[in-house]
Parts: sequence; structure tokens; C-alpha cells
Amino acid sequence: MNKAAAIACGAVIAALAATASAQDVKPERAIKYRQGILQGIGWDMGPMAAMVKGEKPFDKDEFLKRATWVSELAPMPWEGFTPGSDQGAPTKAKPEIWKDMAKFKQYQEAMQAASLKLVAAAKTGTLDAVKGPFGDLGKACSNCHDDFRAK
Amino acid sequence: MNKAAAIACGAVIAALAATASAQDVKPERAIKYRQGILQGIGWDMGPMAAMVKGEKPFDKDEFLKRATWVSELAPMPWEGFTPGSDQGAPTKAKPEIWKDMAKFKQYQEAMQAASLKLVAAAKTGTLDAVKGPFGDLGKACSNCHDDFRAK
Repeated sequence: MNKAAAIACGAVIAALAATASAQDVKPERAIKYRQGILQGIGWDMGPMAAMVKGEKPFDKDEFLKRATWVSELAPMPWEGFTPGSDQGAPTKAKPEIWKDMAKFKQYQEAMQAASLKLVAAAKTGTLDAVKGPFGDLGKACSNCHDDFRAK
Repeated sequence: MNKAAAIACGAVIAALAATASAQDVKPERAIKYRQGILQGIGWDMGPMAAMVKGEKPFDKDEFLKRATWVSELAPMPWEGFTPGSDQGAPTKAKPEIWKDMAKFKQYQEAMQAASLKLVAAAKTGTLDAVKGPFGDLGKACSNCHDDFRAK
């Protein structure tokens, strides 16, 4: 590592000292992390929803990009549901998450699988092909929101 | 699409109506989106920094996961710097971003390239191999923060 890089690296390290692992972070930071990633997923779902609904012209390249991004984001949020992070910052996460982690994990896996199916469908480049898989992904999101997210 | 999926899809669509495209979202939402993704990058940089610094044992699988996630997140935040989103919610983004988009874009590309080099290094599975590329990635982050993020 050259000197300039070492200095920059040191600055980054100092700024991130609180995040040495998902387990030793403060609940507030874990909550903000998972909300940030989940918000990113929502950001990408929006334009896809608009295309599926016909509110926005279907753009196969944009659809594939958004589907891919959702599939990349899909495995990320869950480690932010650290023990004790049912509180510590404003959160809609229900305490049920920590009481039934097995079910919560099932929903995560279903959502990740649905996102991969959407990517596969999006690669065909047609609106007809993505409608069903997009609906399935939306349902996977809703299933978890219904049980584990407060209104 | 089956009926249940269609209903769930409808719910998702309704919730996300405001995000039909990056261009027509409110500044507040764009700011929160980019902050969420950038925070996700910070979340992953933390454990890698701790390993590089020797504060945490080197775990090649975790390092590769974090490096991969950073490389996946790396292209995402930038579309959140929509025209007019230099204000609208608390943000450290300097107005200079919108005055020198070419330079801002150069930094984005350098950071994305550095993240891909780190993934390649992480695939070797050794701490020695990742130290330099991690420092380079940290420097790419710092370069942009120095010029375009308020203290």
C-alpha cells in the first residue's frame, strides 16, 4: 500500500471503527443500515412497478438493471436485524421478528429466490415475461411486511 | 400472474407510486435513497477495515462477501444525486457536485473500478493481497468525500 493510500485507508478505518462486525454495532446503526438497504430495494421496485402497470413505457434495459439491483440488495438487509435492534431508533420492525427468526428467514429466502426469478425473466426482454415474476416478488415483499412490519 | 400476486403487486405499486423514475422523485426521497446505499457501503467497509488493521481476525469468506457487496452497491448511489437534490432533506452533499458533474462522475468510476479490484484480490483469500486494493478503495472514497462532502 502506498503512503497516500495508507493515510486514506486510516481515515476510512477511523470513520468506520463502530462497524467492526454486524454483532457489535449499536442498534441505531443496524436499524439505519437495514432501512437504507430496504429503501434501496423500494427505489428500484418503483420504476418496475410503473412499467408493469403501464404508467411508464417498458424499457427492457432499465427493467433488467432494476431487477438485478434488487437481487443484489436482497441478501443484504437481514444482518441488520441484530439482537436488541427492535428498538434504538424509529423502526417499523415488529418484535415478532426476534421471536420467530425461522419464519423471518423463510420470508427472506423466498424474497431472494423471487428476485432471482425476476432477473431471469427480465433477461428475455419482454414485458409479458416479467409481469408474473414481478407480482411474485411483490407478494414476497408483502408477506413479510404483513407479518413483521408495523403499519 | 395469479390473483393473490396481483393484489400484492398492486399494494407494492401503490406504495411506490412516487418512485416511477429517478428523475421525477422528490429531492427528499432521492437524498434518503443515496444516503441509504452509501451507508450500506460504509457498513461493509467497517469489518474489512477492522481486518486490514488487525483488529479483527482475517476471515477470507467474510472479506470476499463484503468486497462483493461493496462492488454491487458501488454503481447505485449516484442516480440519487438528482437535479435539485442539493437540498430538501439534511444532506452533506456539497453544491459543487451539481456544478462539476464530470469530476463527480470520474470519482464514481474510480471508486467502482477500485471495488472490482478489491473483489479480485479478495478471491485470492489472503490478507496480504487485499491490503493494497482496500487502501486504494478507501482513497477513492476519501477523494470524493474531500471534494464533495461537507464535514
